[in-house]
Amino acid sequence: MKLSQLENNIKNKKSFLCLGLDTDIDKIPKYLLDNSDPVFEFNRILIDELNKKIVAIKLNTAFYESRGAAGWRSMEKTIDYLNKYYPEIFTIADAKRGDIGNTSKMYAKAFFDNLNFDSITLSPYMGMDTVSEFIAYDEKYPIILALTSNKGANDFQIPNNLYELVIKKSMSLMGAKKIMFVVGATKTNFLKHIRNIIPDNFLLIPGVGAQGGNVAEIVNSCTSSNNKKILINVSRSIIYAGNDENFVVEAVKKVDELNNSLIFK
Amino acid sequence: MKLSQLENNIKNKKSFLCLGLDTDIDKIPKYLLDNSDPVFEFNRILIDELNKKIVAIKLNTAFYESRGAAGWRSMEKTIDYLNKYYPEIFTIADAKRGDIGNTSKMYAKAFFDNLNFDSITLSPYMGMDTVSEFIAYDEKYPIILALTSNKGANDFQIPNNLYELVIKKSMSLMGAKKIMFVVGATKTNFLKHIRNIIPDNFLLIPGVGAQGGNVAEIVNSCTSSNNKKILINVSRSIIYAGNDENFVVEAVKKVDELNNSLIFK
Repeated sequence: MKLSQLENNIKNKKSFLCLGLDTDIDKIPKYLLDNSDPVFEFNRILIDELNKKIVAIKLNTAFYESRGAAGWRSMEKTIDYLNKYYPEIFTIADAKRGDIGNTSKMYAKAFFDNLNFDSITLSPYMGMDTVSEFIAYDEKYPIILALTSNKGANDFQIPNNLYELVIKKSMSLMGAKKIMFVVGATKTNFLKHIRNIIPDNFLLIPGVGAQGGNVAEIVNSCTSSNNKKILINVSRSIIYAGNDENFVVEAVKKVDELNNSLIFK
Repeated sequence: MKLSQLENNIKNKKSFLCLGLDTDIDKIPKYLLDNSDPVFEFNRILIDELNKKIVAIKLNTAFYESRGAAGWRSMEKTIDYLNKYYPEIFTIADAKRGDIGNTSKMYAKAFFDNLNFDSITLSPYMGMDTVSEFIAYDEKYPIILALTSNKGANDFQIPNNLYELVIKKSMSLMGAKKIMFVVGATKTNFLKHIRNIIPDNFLLIPGVGAQGGNVAEIVNSCTSSNNKKILINVSRSIIYAGNDENFVVEAVKKVDELNNSLIFK
């Protein structure tokens, strides 16, 4: 997908929402457990109901890997379903990978060639040679962790402004316009500063909902009438809004509430 | 496995070698492709032949994920085979994961509970809350990236001595004695310094062979008669030493050569 199309989708749907399918088989409604693949079925129901109200979907790979090869198949089925029926949804493999060149190539093969995600999250600790394999793909996007929403962000990202160095080094790469950055919603005082450094790159903003970030504040600090380049990820507070047959009704309510809380300038 | 047992194995086998099974289906001998699972078969042959000459085996997850659910099954079969027939081999999931608490729990479930690896490599960018889930396991070990062997180590790890901060913060955690650290073999000038900071922790040292690190120098700079707490990982230069029916003979030669190049004080 072209980033201009993603931005158009945001404008047309009046939504910045990325749905996080961090699907834990122990937390989905019990009635789904009779299905041959309950995790895929849970995802499919949410996707069918929510696709018009959101612009992106993020799958956190940990939740799929925790069920081994069967979990990997649930992930494959979910992304195949999205690519077949809802190609207008921007897809994110939240994998936080990061390794040396020949290994990065294998991760790119896994997530871009085989699974055919539009983008993948990357951990920058090992440096810029971990990113280049991913930039090389046409209409595919690396999303680099800059400043995350968790407490641990204070350990290494904030001391010596490491997150800024990560952003600046990334922006010196060929094709840097394609790079998106993860900036946590719990860090609104940093968001404006980061937006000033990279006015034109997409930001993926997790940490709303269960983690406590405020949507209106975020939108204020990093969008404008001309610039809608953010994705706000919400996972648990949408997908587990209900815990029985009504879970999808509760999820729709939560999504509507989130979309309505946006000030769409 | 207890770390004292691993150290005893090193002393008894007179080997620090960790075999890196970064198995790429496009690089294994063609005659194996008739097997139902050529990657597992390649791994099995190497394991059967080399287990007495090495102390650890590391599987880089990227090479398995690049083949989707089928690749994940090759990884499952390899680790199951190791745990069943060679429980004295220390096993490492080279996954370089790192995520927030509830997600880390899922990765720990994937690699410690289900696959039953002894250890996993972790990327520290997101901070210390990414490590604690893994420390909690009995006789299982987090291996934190400190200073890696690639060119990109100069981007973030070396400026402001981030690698030292990572080591020091990690050592302040409860149970820090269990933590191992990745220190690249291409950084021998740093190895001695790091050994002074953490005299008693195991170091996992990649970058020998294809990447150019020197084994004798490494052993000199971070072991002594009382301290054998290092693992030297070699992947490509062993497993692809040959490319036909003789590949395992060539692999044995390479392993013998590496073991003989060690000065075992």
